Amino acid sequence: MPLRPLGDYLEALRSETPLVHCMTNYVAMNSTANLLLATGASPAMLHAPEEVAEFTAISAALSVNIGTISAHWADAMLIAAATADKYDIPWVLDPVAVGATRYRQALCTRLLALKPGVIRGNASEILALNGLASQGRGVDATATTGQAVEAAIALAQKHGCVVAMTGESDWVTDGTQHYRIEGGHSLMPHVTTLGCGLSALVAAFVAANRQAALGATVAALACFAVAGESAGSRAQGPGSFQVALLDALYQLTPADLTTHTHLEAVHVV
Amino acid sequence: MPLRPLGDYLEALRSETPLVHCMTNYVAMNSTANLLLATGASPAMLHAPEEVAEFTAISAALSVNIGTISAHWADAMLIAAATADKYDIPWVLDPVAVGATRYRQALCTRLLALKPGVIRGNASEILALNGLASQGRGVDATATTGQAVEAAIALAQKHGCVVAMTGESDWVTDGTQHYRIEGGHSLMPHVTTLGCGLSALVAAFVAANRQAALGATVAALACFAVAGESAGSRAQGPGSFQVALLDALYQLTPADLTTHTHLEAVHVV
Amino acid sequence: MPLRPLGDYLEALRSETPLVHCMTNYVAMNSTANLLLATGASPAMLHAPEEVAEFTAISAALSVNIGTISAHWADAMLIAAATADKYDIPWVLDPVAVGATRYRQALCTRLLALKPGVIRGNASEILALNGLASQGRGVDATATTGQAVEAAIALAQKHGCVVAMTGESDWVTDGTQHYRIEGGHSLMPHVTTLGCGLSALVAAFVAANRQAALGATVAALACFAVAGESAGSRAQGPGSFQVALLDALYQLTPADLTTHTHLEAVHVV
Repeated sequence: MPLRPLGDYLEALRSETPLVHCMTNYVAMNSTANLLLATGASPAMLHAPEEVAEFTAISAALSVNIGTISAHWADAMLIAAATADKYDIPWVLDPVAVGATRYRQALCTRLLALKPGVIRGNASEILALNGLASQGRGVDATATTGQAVEAAIALAQKHGCVVAMTGESDWVTDGTQHYRIEGGHSLMPHVTTLGCGLSALVAAFVAANRQAALGATVAALACFAVAGESAGSRAQGPGSFQVALLDALYQLTPADLTTHTHLEAVHVV
Repeated sequence: MPLRPLGDYLEALRSETPLVHCMTNYVAMNSTANLLLATGASPAMLHAPEEVAEFTAISAALSVNIGTISAHWADAMLIAAATADKYDIPWVLDPVAVGATRYRQALCTRLLALKPGVIRGNASEILALNGLASQGRGVDATATTGQAVEAAIALAQKHGCVVAMTGESDWVTDGTQHYRIEGGHSLMPHVTTLGCGLSALVAAFVAANRQAALGATVAALACFAVAGESAGSRAQGPGSFQVALLDALYQLTPADLTTHTHLEAVHVV
Repeated sequence: MPLRPLGDYLEALRSETPLVHCMTNYVAMNSTANLLLATGASPAMLHAPEEVAEFTAISAALSVNIGTISAHWADAMLIAAATADKYDIPWVLDPVAVGATRYRQALCTRLLALKPGVIRGNASEILALNGLASQGRGVDATATTGQAVEAAIALAQKHGCVVAMTGESDWVTDGTQHYRIEGGHSLMPHVTTLGCGLSALVAAFVAANRQAALGATVAALACFAVAGESAGSRAQGPGSFQVALLDALYQLTPADLTTHTHLEAVHVV
């Protein structure tokens, strides 16, 4: 099935303003909420084990990011993901620094069993998640996306989900179809938690485009690529870049997204 | 008792720089601290049950926001609010998304018993807090302020406090006198946690204007309305709006506040 | 041993991009990560007792800030600091508001026993940490740096570490050599958590300049002083200051740092 024009996915997001239950790390919470609000979704952050099931059940999507996990957050994430799985609510896993500690590996193994619709990570994280050896040294990507494309495809096939791998080039695959997106700006790695925010934005796009998770994920990454390019052309450094990125996401039209994305379908042998 | 010129309340805040103990959600912490510092108050964020009583007791005001509560935060909020009640330290309740889960409803019931001086919420939250049926779907207001004015007045009367309800128009009532404030900007709902920060700013204004909680609350909301209008005129989107709002609050003079606020005393039949 | 030209320390930081394990308060997490990324270091935030030892051991430095501590964070900080001590990984202590509650005092006593390489605080905090009477009323400095210089020197001698005391003027001492740095901007106290971020930046500088903790700490403070001066000249208020500071740290060259720092070696009798 070919993708629709990318602007269509953004149009659906803007008209639905999906409520995204974000369980993300402390560093990313504010910027994630702002990235979603700027683009047109409605974020809500809460994590008490006492209430997550009730809240996930009324959300359009769930986004789980393990950046600053601790025991009671992990418990709540498992409850929320199980709720999403039960009610067929799309959910996204962002396995931050999964290669860095055994604690993260153990948690991700349990989360993967609850069937995320999309996994979004950098190359090191995708490699680690697929069980391949990786020299991940924390939250940075030290492996290149090129090296990890095979791992991304294998992971998508194994778990029946979409995998989005971001870096200098971005890759999206459902195990069968593969897309590469170019764009963004060299300042992006100098701003914290953009990837975390992108994971939540993927959740919002998928919520507004049910039955089209692959295209919705491509569209979310394309938003960052196009808005990032535009923000970079106006920024003097990472401070002004952040500001310009929120403005650019807000100003981005569906037509811009369709026209300005550098997207390529890739055949992997 | 008529209100004083609104600039007087701001002048008092600037000359006292009240220390506000903020127990707020993770999303709002940084922006709340910056909103208070820009306007002229002194924020402090801490929440360990082991130390909150000691700290609330030396603070000029307490602000409690339940956005990202969990069990040990709830315990600490109850201790802090009880301390404020005991020592007659003004405190503000921000009942984020109280309609969304039973956990929040139960916590708010306990907090209300500790006599907040001011409650600040959106229309859905005020309706839910007053026990009326509301279709709150999380942190967004889906009810309009107009529908909820009666609930706000009833809530103020029931709890002997000031209620501030924010939305397209803002309302402040102590159950007897009612004010409507217009202003702000259409970009404000696209920036996260402005309402949370406003609740803490209300606490700062009330601390610097004891015996005048109604006027102090109106003045806090007026700061946001006037600074928001000014910031909106300079912003290209939600990123630059946030930056401009902090600058505008810092630059706002008492005379500006008195002159530029669109304030109306309202008679409700 | 005289200091090297300050730009040399920055050059080392940029070429090593040290991974700094940041255990900091919720208010400061995002801004700390961005300050480190803008300057050229690589931050990682995590705090679960289950994984901190494993992660500190692979980090180049550790930064511990007690701003929003609670019991499980305190446990994890002690584990991480003990790990840093064991493996000779430099670590920095930021004793936020240590004078305000007994809980903080007790935790800092335990942390000091784990031998931080650098302590960074304001005058009130340094006085409180040295056991002198101080009227600290929270996170603000109410004592002046001048009054606290003796306490800083005593603290450095007692614990065999570098002490950095920031305020209108900044002081750095290892108990034997003392430096004063002027610069920065009057808007800096109107932006939250700059001091917290600076502590983590000190950790990054020390990591990239082992065996030269005194000079590395001076260089970190000098970055803030020079970039702060530059940002202040372009800012209209605390909102635009924050943005300009990140841009200025990113643009700051080693030559700028060497040339523009107002640094003075001070002889204290």
